[in-house]
Amino acid sequence: MTFTANASRAILVLLHWIVYLHDTYLSVKWLVISWILGTAYSLNEDSELVRADASKLRKKPRHLSVILQYTNTSGVEALIEDTVNVVCWSIAAGLNRLTVYERTGILKEDCDLLQKILNNRLQSYMSAEFCTEVKLYVPHTGRSIGPESGFLVSLISEEDGKETIVDLTKSFCEMSAKDQLNDQDITVEMVDSHLQKLVVPEPDLLIVTGKDSYLYGYPPWQLRVCEIYFTNKSSPLDYVSFLKGCINYSGANITLGR
Amino acid sequence: MTFTANASRAILVLLHWIVYLHDTYLSVKWLVISWILGTAYSLNEDSELVRADASKLRKKPRHLSVILQYTNTSGVEALIEDTVNVVCWSIAAGLNRLTVYERTGILKEDCDLLQKILNNRLQSYMSAEFCTEVKLYVPHTGRSIGPESGFLVSLISEEDGKETIVDLTKSFCEMSAKDQLNDQDITVEMVDSHLQKLVVPEPDLLIVTGKDSYLYGYPPWQLRVCEIYFTNKSSPLDYVSFLKGCINYSGANITLGR
Repeated sequence: MTFTANASRAILVLLHWIVYLHDTYLSVKWLVISWILGTAYSLNEDSELVRADASKLRKKPRHLSVILQYTNTSGVEALIEDTVNVVCWSIAAGLNRLTVYERTGILKEDCDLLQKILNNRLQSYMSAEFCTEVKLYVPHTGRSIGPESGFLVSLISEEDGKETIVDLTKSFCEMSAKDQLNDQDITVEMVDSHLQKLVVPEPDLLIVTGKDSYLYGYPPWQLRVCEIYFTNKSSPLDYVSFLKGCINYSGANITLGR
Repeated sequence: MTFTANASRAILVLLHWIVYLHDTYLSVKWLVISWILGTAYSLNEDSELVRADASKLRKKPRHLSVILQYTNTSGVEALIEDTVNVVCWSIAAGLNRLTVYERTGILKEDCDLLQKILNNRLQSYMSAEFCTEVKLYVPHTGRSIGPESGFLVSLISEEDGKETIVDLTKSFCEMSAKDQLNDQDITVEMVDSHLQKLVVPEPDLLIVTGKDSYLYGYPPWQLRVCEIYFTNKSSPLDYVSFLKGCINYSGANITLGR
């Protein structure tokens, strides 16, 4: 090996190390800052602050969706707490609707309790003039609780994903066998419109909690041009991650098909 | 408003600014480092270096997929150059197969030319002992070029996504109408297995080029537990992004359903 090759390899190894050390330094620094900011925000239960942050965004997601994680150790209480927080922030930020995905479906099991906790928290969190109620909706069962005019929160789980697409396929087959449907009428737009009604329309922004960057079985059909933000932190979803997701969306240049 | 409230607000505003300035500083610093590293790597056309990097990974994706961007300004030549690069890196890193997604499908139009350029480049890039040929495969037409034993590169586009799911639904309906298929036999596993044959199996890692964090119409069914890495840079895909995607995957703790 020539001297030049050795020298260039040495430079590359050196650059490698600079990047690795720099990365570690960044991670630690960001963790400390997030922790300070997270603590400061959780101490300050003030919806005005969220409103002020949101007003600085160039554009806001109308329809936000979050993937929350259920673990045996933290239990369903932690999941409810996460949901209540993100509902409060979304209303304060002026978003139009929220869809909460939790893989196992445990969050949908006691909607009455969730609704009660939500409305209680909203009363103490929001100032009287902005206070609103929540309409909880579970697409899989079609059940909804709360006033029609309330802020719409849809609760979905893994069964709303591939299983729902397969169920739709089955009903198309049945209808086709009974001559109620012509095969040629089945199009991407038609499936789109059915799945929007059966589950939810495609969100504008999807915030994914959890250490890994994957979609945990989220309804796949609904993710064509949706901006995705991975927090890469295990639950709970903190306000800083919520805000960073919105800031990313606000800077994203979505042009495809919209 | 009390003094305490004012003070806490002032602290929050200060923290905000620290985070924003810090973020900007990081972005600039990372851009400079990426540029230096990118230049150094592109000067060094050495597959040994890629092999050495890959050998340090705790685990490697067997099946890598990348989303590449076609723009009128850079043209199809830039797209081919991107593809050739990522094929070389994947082979050198010892991955098993590669799936290249480009939304419009322009990459699949001249497979013979692509195959020729690929094999030429591989001969000069790889050392003789590791040199291999490439088998190009276009799932939508079923066409393949190159030896059966070659490194498998599948070329897909938006038509392999929702459209293929709808086509599959149509054929199920036809079969069901002719009593060749019982509706009850249609399951998630069955659709999974058909789509794996019609398009590609789910990749282990998906690297997405482009400034925005969304999926550009990528086949949605294939993304249940696939690790996703957004480069958040417009094309071309550089080696640093390829490596960072692999490092992220190597650290990801995929447990769900595997």
